[in-house]
Amino acid sequence: MTTHTPSTTVLGLGAMGTALARALLSAGHPVTVWNRTAAKADALVARGAARAASPAEAVAASPVVVACLLDYDSVREVLGTGNLQGRTIVNLTNGTPGQAREFAEWAACQGADYLDGGIMAVPPMIGSPAAFVLYSGSRTAFDRARPALDVFGESVYLGEDVGRAALTDIALLTGMYGMFGGILQSLALATSDGAPATGFAPMLTRWLQAMSGLVDTAAKQIDSGDYATGVVSNLGMQAAGFDNLLRTADEQGVSGELLAPLGRLMRQRAADGHAHEDVAGIIHHLRKDNA
Amino acid sequence: MTTHTPSTTVLGLGAMGTALARALLSAGHPVTVWNRTAAKADALVARGAARAASPAEAVAASPVVVACLLDYDSVREVLGTGNLQGRTIVNLTNGTPGQAREFAEWAACQGADYLDGGIMAVPPMIGSPAAFVLYSGSRTAFDRARPALDVFGESVYLGEDVGRAALTDIALLTGMYGMFGGILQSLALATSDGAPATGFAPMLTRWLQAMSGLVDTAAKQIDSGDYATGVVSNLGMQAAGFDNLLRTADEQGVSGELLAPLGRLMRQRAADGHAHEDVAGIIHHLRKDNA
Ligand SMILES: NC(=O)c1ccc[n+]([C@@H]2O[C@H](COP(=O)([O-])OP(=O)(O)OC[C@H]3O[C@@H](n4cnc5c(N)ncnc54)[C@H](OP(=O)(O)O)[C@@H]3O)[C@@H](O)[C@H]2O)c1
Ligand SMILES: NC(=O)c1ccc[n+]([C@@H]2O[C@H](COP(=O)([O-])OP(=O)(O)OC[C@H]3O[C@@H](n4cnc5c(N)ncnc54)[C@H](OP(=O)(O)O)[C@@H]3O)[C@@H](O)[C@H]2O)c1
Repeated sequence: MTTHTPSTTVLGLGAMGTALARALLSAGHPVTVWNRTAAKADALVARGAARAASPAEAVAASPVVVACLLDYDSVREVLGTGNLQGRTIVNLTNGTPGQAREFAEWAACQGADYLDGGIMAVPPMIGSPAAFVLYSGSRTAFDRARPALDVFGESVYLGEDVGRAALTDIALLTGMYGMFGGILQSLALATSDGAPATGFAPMLTRWLQAMSGLVDTAAKQIDSGDYATGVVSNLGMQAAGFDNLLRTADEQGVSGELLAPLGRLMRQRAADGHAHEDVAGIIHHLRKDNA
Repeated sequence: MTTHTPSTTVLGLGAMGTALARALLSAGHPVTVWNRTAAKADALVARGAARAASPAEAVAASPVVVACLLDYDSVREVLGTGNLQGRTIVNLTNGTPGQAREFAEWAACQGADYLDGGIMAVPPMIGSPAAFVLYSGSRTAFDRARPALDVFGESVYLGEDVGRAALTDIALLTGMYGMFGGILQSLALATSDGAPATGFAPMLTRWLQAMSGLVDTAAKQIDSGDYATGVVSNLGMQAAGFDNLLRTADEQGVSGELLAPLGRLMRQRAADGHAHEDVAGIIHHLRKDNA
């Protein structure tokens, strides 16, 4: 394949790696792919991707190597077999800030320039403006890889501190999983008398939307440390209402296990003399140094 | 006070009862108020509300009596002292479906027509189109009280089954508290290296917004029982990623107690042979009869 644009390598063709490689192909980028289970490359090869026979061959094929595997252990295993000297490694695999820092050190020893990233999208969103991808680490690596990265969605560079993308990614996922756990518990209750979940779903979407301002309200209170001014839903009232959530789960034969920890934190905070304040102050019970 | 519109009584002038009474006054409805701590009525009386000296007097003053107190026990205590014969009682106090059914029976014995309700709004939203209020129970009571109720926000009547409003209210609040717990955990992580919460908040709002389709996706899967078609984020991958949420909390000195139960459910569901499916199937582990 002769071309003026150098190819980009994608390591890992699960649901996400496949979406990344497909978006690059659609945008006209030459792409080299490798996956442990080789058959997952077939459709991409049919669309013009070059198939590498090994990770080492895949790494040798392109100046920019994008890795999207299950976890950091598999990335280490796969990249450990190639010569990374002079390569730009962009790791879009989910991991912790500590794993990102450790991996950056290892990549530096191999002579690679390292960029860590976190994808804020599900695979069908890749290549659409709704997707955004967080990056941190080497600014040179970011600039060099950028033509490829901008294909995935909005590129958000968070600075040279290599753990920052992972911390931000994990914080956002944490918010999403809280919402998701709430959605499941909500749907379990709403369907507990035999009603369909799809009948109830639009009302739940509307309500979560109406309450999305909780993020900004809580953030302002946390930064100022003032949980007592302008309270419209005091913790004492909310703790009493929360007991009704647990009782209703019980009445309806639904487990309360997803709710229980927040209830404990609310009761603890109220008992500590904050019943007249807003509920966001329980963040102080989550911080181990401030507890 | 001589008027053609009969007055509406509001029992309870906490943050919510005050907002209800104020909205009625603003809409030109005559209002009679009572609160255990009498001073909370002063501002409303200055705006034209009639002050009742006792709950019995408040009940006698109006055909429609709206109660908004801390819990059902306090409503029972307060209403127990009045003559409810022929009154329409609208109880907007938070409670369980079982409490609503029990209360409806008691109200019937007192000769009252009973409507149960759940307010989906915080006090500053009362009287705006963003607010909606769920009702269930006596259709006659709903129709009779409606001119007053429509002042609060959109009135949503869910039928004669008196527990339905409470079940729906509690299911919606459950979703909100899941989201809220996720927001707090997210903000605790994002601020764990000293960054301000307000700097991170817009990204969290954007991400939760982008993921709000999870409600409809999960609802469709739950109604069909099919968690395996068109999976873009398999449970095995998500369970691995979820471990990183817990590890990151640990790395950053944040408690993982709010996250732990969902992690346990995900691991259990994956171990039961559903790692290739979507995560919403864990709802079957929440339903005690299906577990
Ligand atoms: N899907 C999403 O919604 C989403 C969203 C944001 C971020 N992510 C992140 O993207 C990454 C990939 O997710 P995915 O959805 O693509 O997962 P997936 O569909 O389960 O694919 C996992 C990939 O990892 C490979 N793999 C696992 N263990 C390996 C090993 N020891 N050696 C070599 N390859 C190995 C698999 O190869 P085989 O094909 O040979 O099994 C496959 O290519 C994860 O870190 C995930 O957190 C995913
Ligand atoms: N605020 C919200 O965001 C919101 C949203 C939706 C639904 N709600 C529901 O609305 C109801 C009231 O909430 P709120 O925010 O107004 O609470 P609040 O500000 O804490 O007010 C509580 C009210 O209950 C009264 N009360 C408590 N125990 C009583 C007793 N034993 N006898 C007589 N009165 C008693 C209080 O009287 P005193 O003034 O004498 O203490 C006060 O009027 C709750 O069920 C709540 O779940 C609130």
